Amino acid sequence: MTQTAQGQTRKESDTMGTLDVDASRLWGAQTERSIHNFPIGRDTFVWGRPVIRALGILKKGAAQANAELGELPGDIADLIVQAADEVIAGQLDDHFPLVVFQTGSGTQSNMNANEVISNRAIQLAGGEMGSKQPVHPNDHVNRGQSSNDTFPTAMHIAVVLELNERLYGAVGKLRDTLHAKAEQYAELVKVGRTHLQDATPITLGQEIGGWVAQLDYALAEVKHAEQGLYDLAIGGTAVGTGLNAHPSFGALAARKYEAETGFPFRSAENKFAALSAHDALVQTSAALRTLAGALMKMANDVRWLASGPRNGIGEIVIPENEPGSSIMPGKVNPTQSEALTMVATRVFGNDATVAFAGTQGNFQLNVFKPVMVHAVLESIRLIADASLAFNDQCAVGIEPNLERIEHNLSVNLMQVTALNKHIGYDKAAAIAKKAHKEGLSLKEAALGLGYVTEDEFARWVVPLEMTRN
Amino acid sequence: MTQTAQGQTRKESDTMGTLDVDASRLWGAQTERSIHNFPIGRDTFVWGRPVIRALGILKKGAAQANAELGELPGDIADLIVQAADEVIAGQLDDHFPLVVFQTGSGTQSNMNANEVISNRAIQLAGGEMGSKQPVHPNDHVNRGQSSNDTFPTAMHIAVVLELNERLYGAVGKLRDTLHAKAEQYAELVKVGRTHLQDATPITLGQEIGGWVAQLDYALAEVKHAEQGLYDLAIGGTAVGTGLNAHPSFGALAARKYEAETGFPFRSAENKFAALSAHDALVQTSAALRTLAGALMKMANDVRWLASGPRNGIGEIVIPENEPGSSIMPGKVNPTQSEALTMVATRVFGNDATVAFAGTQGNFQLNVFKPVMVHAVLESIRLIADASLAFNDQCAVGIEPNLERIEHNLSVNLMQVTALNKHIGYDKAAAIAKKAHKEGLSLKEAALGLGYVTEDEFARWVVPLEMTRN
Amino acid sequence: MTQTAQGQTRKESDTMGTLDVDASRLWGAQTERSIHNFPIGRDTFVWGRPVIRALGILKKGAAQANAELGELPGDIADLIVQAADEVIAGQLDDHFPLVVFQTGSGTQSNMNANEVISNRAIQLAGGEMGSKQPVHPNDHVNRGQSSNDTFPTAMHIAVVLELNERLYGAVGKLRDTLHAKAEQYAELVKVGRTHLQDATPITLGQEIGGWVAQLDYALAEVKHAEQGLYDLAIGGTAVGTGLNAHPSFGALAARKYEAETGFPFRSAENKFAALSAHDALVQTSAALRTLAGALMKMANDVRWLASGPRNGIGEIVIPENEPGSSIMPGKVNPTQSEALTMVATRVFGNDATVAFAGTQGNFQLNVFKPVMVHAVLESIRLIADASLAFNDQCAVGIEPNLERIEHNLSVNLMQVTALNKHIGYDKAAAIAKKAHKEGLSLKEAALGLGYVTEDEFARWVVPLEMTRN
Amino acid sequence: MTQTAQGQTRKESDTMGTLDVDASRLWGAQTERSIHNFPIGRDTFVWGRPVIRALGILKKGAAQANAELGELPGDIADLIVQAADEVIAGQLDDHFPLVVFQTGSGTQSNMNANEVISNRAIQLAGGEMGSKQPVHPNDHVNRGQSSNDTFPTAMHIAVVLELNERLYGAVGKLRDTLHAKAEQYAELVKVGRTHLQDATPITLGQEIGGWVAQLDYALAEVKHAEQGLYDLAIGGTAVGTGLNAHPSFGALAARKYEAETGFPFRSAENKFAALSAHDALVQTSAALRTLAGALMKMANDVRWLASGPRNGIGEIVIPENEPGSSIMPGKVNPTQSEALTMVATRVFGNDATVAFAGTQGNFQLNVFKPVMVHAVLESIRLIADASLAFNDQCAVGIEPNLERIEHNLSVNLMQVTALNKHIGYDKAAAIAKKAHKEGLSLKEAALGLGYVTEDEFARWVVPLEMTRN
Repeated sequence: MTQTAQGQTRKESDTMGTLDVDASRLWGAQTERSIHNFPIGRDTFVWGRPVIRALGILKKGAAQANAELGELPGDIADLIVQAADEVIAGQLDDHFPLVVFQTGSGTQSNMNANEVISNRAIQLAGGEMGSKQPVHPNDHVNRGQSSNDTFPTAMHIAVVLELNERLYGAVGKLRDTLHAKAEQYAELVKVGRTHLQDATPITLGQEIGGWVAQLDYALAEVKHAEQGLYDLAIGGTAVGTGLNAHPSFGALAARKYEAETGFPFRSAENKFAALSAHDALVQTSAALRTLAGALMKMANDVRWLASGPRNGIGEIVIPENEPGSSIMPGKVNPTQSEALTMVATRVFGNDATVAFAGTQGNFQLNVFKPVMVHAVLESIRLIADASLAFNDQCAVGIEPNLERIEHNLSVNLMQVTALNKHIGYDKAAAIAKKAHKEGLSLKEAALGLGYVTEDEFARWVVPLEMTRN
Repeated sequence: MTQTAQGQTRKESDTMGTLDVDASRLWGAQTERSIHNFPIGRDTFVWGRPVIRALGILKKGAAQANAELGELPGDIADLIVQAADEVIAGQLDDHFPLVVFQTGSGTQSNMNANEVISNRAIQLAGGEMGSKQPVHPNDHVNRGQSSNDTFPTAMHIAVVLELNERLYGAVGKLRDTLHAKAEQYAELVKVGRTHLQDATPITLGQEIGGWVAQLDYALAEVKHAEQGLYDLAIGGTAVGTGLNAHPSFGALAARKYEAETGFPFRSAENKFAALSAHDALVQTSAALRTLAGALMKMANDVRWLASGPRNGIGEIVIPENEPGSSIMPGKVNPTQSEALTMVATRVFGNDATVAFAGTQGNFQLNVFKPVMVHAVLESIRLIADASLAFNDQCAVGIEPNLERIEHNLSVNLMQVTALNKHIGYDKAAAIAKKAHKEGLSLKEAALGLGYVTEDEFARWVVPLEMTRN
Repeated sequence: MTQTAQGQTRKESDTMGTLDVDASRLWGAQTERSIHNFPIGRDTFVWGRPVIRALGILKKGAAQANAELGELPGDIADLIVQAADEVIAGQLDDHFPLVVFQTGSGTQSNMNANEVISNRAIQLAGGEMGSKQPVHPNDHVNRGQSSNDTFPTAMHIAVVLELNERLYGAVGKLRDTLHAKAEQYAELVKVGRTHLQDATPITLGQEIGGWVAQLDYALAEVKHAEQGLYDLAIGGTAVGTGLNAHPSFGALAARKYEAETGFPFRSAENKFAALSAHDALVQTSAALRTLAGALMKMANDVRWLASGPRNGIGEIVIPENEPGSSIMPGKVNPTQSEALTMVATRVFGNDATVAFAGTQGNFQLNVFKPVMVHAVLESIRLIADASLAFNDQCAVGIEPNLERIEHNLSVNLMQVTALNKHIGYDKAAAIAKKAHKEGLSLKEAALGLGYVTEDEFARWVVPLEMTRN
Repeated sequence: MTQTAQGQTRKESDTMGTLDVDASRLWGAQTERSIHNFPIGRDTFVWGRPVIRALGILKKGAAQANAELGELPGDIADLIVQAADEVIAGQLDDHFPLVVFQTGSGTQSNMNANEVISNRAIQLAGGEMGSKQPVHPNDHVNRGQSSNDTFPTAMHIAVVLELNERLYGAVGKLRDTLHAKAEQYAELVKVGRTHLQDATPITLGQEIGGWVAQLDYALAEVKHAEQGLYDLAIGGTAVGTGLNAHPSFGALAARKYEAETGFPFRSAENKFAALSAHDALVQTSAALRTLAGALMKMANDVRWLASGPRNGIGEIVIPENEPGSSIMPGKVNPTQSEALTMVATRVFGNDATVAFAGTQGNFQLNVFKPVMVHAVLESIRLIADASLAFNDQCAVGIEPNLERIEHNLSVNLMQVTALNKHIGYDKAAAIAKKAHKEGLSLKEAALGLGYVTEDEFARWVVPLEMTRN
């Protein structure tokens, strides 16, 4: 696109009047007002790619649907589609300067999209930017729409795409690495632990497999929540009645979004709920929280199992990626676990924001839309990034410390449990207590008490068999 | 059952020794120790019916499965089943004195069930209580089980039953009341509101219908989460390997629970995750939070719509159930909304507890089990009770204040939106601004500016039509 | 007091009409309505002693102040004081049947107090219960008051008393136990741990002393927050203006509360904030959350340090209070840590409730009062009970496992840090890495690399000296 | 400083080996490793000015203290101070590329500071970058320090400075604006509202004054929490014992920080707690949450009082800053309230993150440091920015809608409360109920029932007097 020299300005207007806008920028009066009125967290809260792209998809599909329904002239629609394609492609990101903390319906970001697309379309048509001729931001780009239905539509599109393009692959990669480790060590017997105390044996594969099962469940729940995001507010316009939109607009626009993205978007059955509540987003956030919790449990297990090197559990070894300490030479720390668990606490915070905001709708609108979608997108990004880092820098390199594992197993007292069904719980307990008190091996204590013969002990207490059922 | 006189005691023993227990109580040594060791929140945190009943169901099905698999003699199993049936029926509730804050695996409540059922079975068999003959609490009642798999199994059973027997009916009743109101007032046109500001018209039926749609979604999500609760830990015993349980025990026990309750319980595919994480419970809690959020939005709308009587919105009238003020005579307050929204904040807190606790598993066990199931059961109870109260004391009596609704609609400026597609957004805005500034009606302003004729205004600005799409 | 036979009823009336009340109960019409209208969580959410007692204190001081200001005849005031004293003493608890989830201003519990005190005063005066003669619940007992100022006043009184009579002593006892342990083991050198990895030495006393410092800080913060609770809403009546109260009533009543309790209560400077927000309660809840967090860190350290017995850290030994497992004989678990950390997650949830509710005030009132004070009182109770149990059943019995501590220290590599200032970080790192890789002791590696002499090593690497500064 | 051409690299090394670093950057090997190992949330989670500046202050004061104690040669210290001054001034921000999600002790950001200052000092001395001569990142810049004590020290410095330089002024400005409005409208009588229902009169000044009182309390609590941040971990080094630091280092460094910043920093009495817990930060976060809650209540009141324009409460008018709707012409929305309340929900989420993370310390270290300080700094920034925007774009322009206020007051029934003390609560209630039911004015109903004379009504029911006490 053509860039005008810095420092130049042009006039832009809205229903409140006229003001100057940097001539190199495509936005109009309402975007300019928003920059002025909401200087809140500008460093880090400017919308990024996912939302800008979703706004592009939104406006493109709306123009296509309106054209098909005879609500927009074909040439106008074509210009809008062309400009929206540039928004989708990321070519106009510099023209989306607004931050999250603005009008709670996202009105100004919707208008930012309308203005940029309008002006870019005007540019493409050889018209005068700011003239609203031949493409008007409200009457054409926003045709049959309101911020109240477009912004939540863009929210859903953005989240669905980020889940599919960013989250599932990243977490899935970690899941697959762990799954492979679980299979690799399916027969490696080691001490189990409950209440942090020594317990009956398991295999390392079973231990890792528990993490995999948690990830599988959590991912399935995120994917279930995603189904709710396919329901779009589009077609509801200002209050859910669809006033000013063609009766078929919502359904047709949704089909355009499906065509553009490949996901089965549909016009929500109840538009009043779609504008005034974002429960599908709350559920998505909750499922991300569950996923973060599962990752936290796994990352905690990894660092505890790798603790030591000499005075911890030390049953696994993890990659040494960096010097661990600025003062203790030679120290290596479980840094990927630390980054991932910090991400988990952040995701919990984001979820608290989303759920709180989700309760605060009134009448026909919830005006906490921007803060909700921002927090969900941040959670997706962080979980995805941290899962990949954890996978690449830690999980792939997890190895058992065979010497330690064998030693620990050999001194473990809880194999006594295998005797329960042969001699009863009370006698088995007596053996374990004697061994613990006198520092004996289990076998020594068992024989010493005369409850089993050496042969029976050898047949009954077999760690690997204790891991099978 | 036979009651012994108060004040008498009998000896009970476990692997740590012997102690005195009130002879009128069926519990044994480990329950007695727990009473002594955990005097925490005794007034309000003693387990109630849902968990006690679930423990009964758990032990009954386990005995049946063990008998069928040849792991328990038939006569022993019969005695256990008979005692467990009394637990299920609530006849032995006084023998379950333990509180939530105990061992984090629920070991002591599992042992409480083992001990009570053992002693009751001994009693039924004419034996000596505390003798563990002929029914031993560990070797028989707990056969093939560990607290680590039984307590989470009881957790799931308890929650599934409470959801089905308490929650769905109560919230469904409220939902149906609102749905009927939505249908009743499907044509009653009134002012819509977005950003708390006057907006284009809707019908009262549409407004209420939005609440119904939220409840429908939230209930469906709770029911979805319930699916995850059908996966039971039973069969995993101490660490998930199933050591000491018959290989078919978990699956068969689950079928017994299905037979007892009618819900499709199954043995969880991965028992390691089933013991060390409770993500299905976290998801259930999250769905209850979404439901609470939906109820909060509805209850807030109700109280705002009923605000006044003279200086609020006042478009609906709600029942007067009690004097509203101890100082302002004649005041009537939206007290059911207040109780319900307070419940919502409590459910949010419970959910924070559950999700936090859910992350804190280590290795083969999560030791926050009791606090998690307690919080979920409390949320179910409160939502159910408050929904019923709200339904009976408020929702059924909601009536439109027709006079106020009509007045408000007649002075509303936002019907101007209907002119957008005829005269464009900018001219429509000029009309609204003129009317607002000069205190005119919309029609006066429209005609005054000459943008429409009287006839056009009459044809284009029709509130009821503005609610249709 | 006189008890009437069960089953009998008497007539009670309020501004909405007349209804039957169990003749054995002192409450009146509004309490009866509330029982009917709010059957929510009845099992566990009936107000307990702290709030009932605070209502008694509230009404007693109000009557005294009114009498002193000439707003109430002396004999009426005396009757009220006498009845209120019975409420304070707990003699009338059975006459306070209401639950937390009611009107959000606590109106019905305020009226419950008014009605019970009125009827009891009438009884004392030989009058007819329900007659409101000679002591009227509104005109006399509630004189110069509104629920809007009395209930938050009672909230503050209840919380201040519970903090002082329950919390500080219980947590202080645990703190003192730990402090004594810290002094006892001030010279016992052991391995330090950062990132769960072996680090430079500390003493067990230093480790325990860190917990004490956290408890000291958290207790100081709770006590600071308590200062804010001394500001009472009393005197604000319905909206904060004090309408219908004598201008000196609030200040004088506060002095009566000080006299009754010994705490420096005062009439809040800004009554509008005192009715419409409960930020001092939010801050108290937050400080309790910090305290719970400190307890959780301590309890986690205890269970990790006691982990094993053979395959964990095992550097301390904690009391064996009960059999640990229903399946693994001889297992002992850190159950007091588990109960205490579960309490911590519950306190976090309660705090989420309080903070959320605290934001939801509108205009001159916050109508989430009951749920807020209930959650704070529950947190106090649970922290106090669990701290005492942890102290009595665990902390007092914590002992070092000297053998394990010495072994761990002897193989620890991080003493290498002491060499940094003699040979530089890089050479020290090389020593540690060599020792780790080759399974050598630090000394062996140091001498092997020739960076220090045997004599230097002996002088420079002295664990006890490494714990001093 | 000298910039090298892009694309060139130099060798940098640490204890794990040597790697290439962009020659235009001052960082060393460990920073480079972190960039590679932690690509998590890179877009928005790179540390900003407050933390970089604090790291500069930290290293400057440490060098000064070490020099004064003879632990560093004067010329080395001078070079470090000079480089650190450039860090403080913001000249080297481009050399701090790391993100929040890294090692949980902030080790890599501490090393980033060590490396940049080392290389910059080398540059100033004319040495070779990467040579660690004459200024070594560990042995000199990090002298007597560990990440474990430096990073939390920088956290406290950063938060104290942001509170003082950003938060207090911004919120104070809004507070002062509201205070001035409260004084301006101290006599403007209007309807009070409790339970959203009409209540007895207040003045607009009283209503606004309630908000001011909340802000005053919350600000005082933040300032109280700030006191706890003056306690610094510096001097504790790796585990709290101060190993390798001069015994006076911590105290002296703290005095340097006081000199540099003007705030009374001190070396924490208990360094073990200072490394393993961040409770003062948790308390600061909690106080910020209370402040956010107070702002939310105020912002909600503002938008409800401004609701309408015709069908809401409409008692105040707020500035029109932008067109409110992309579809409803002429609509004006309370957008500053929306942005501010969205910020409040974000602050609540950040606080949830901080408090959760704060519980997760183990032994001698809490490894959630970066995520904690980031969330607190974000909350400060957002509250400050949003308060300023709300002040400038909304609060300063709040005006009463006199016509509406007077009308509402004139029809209000709750002035009846003034009759309580003349005719009793029950008769007053009857008047209000009659007026409400029959649509009468209060006076008409009062006279109609014959409970007061016209003269009495005029003397007793005086709204302005009802606002005084």
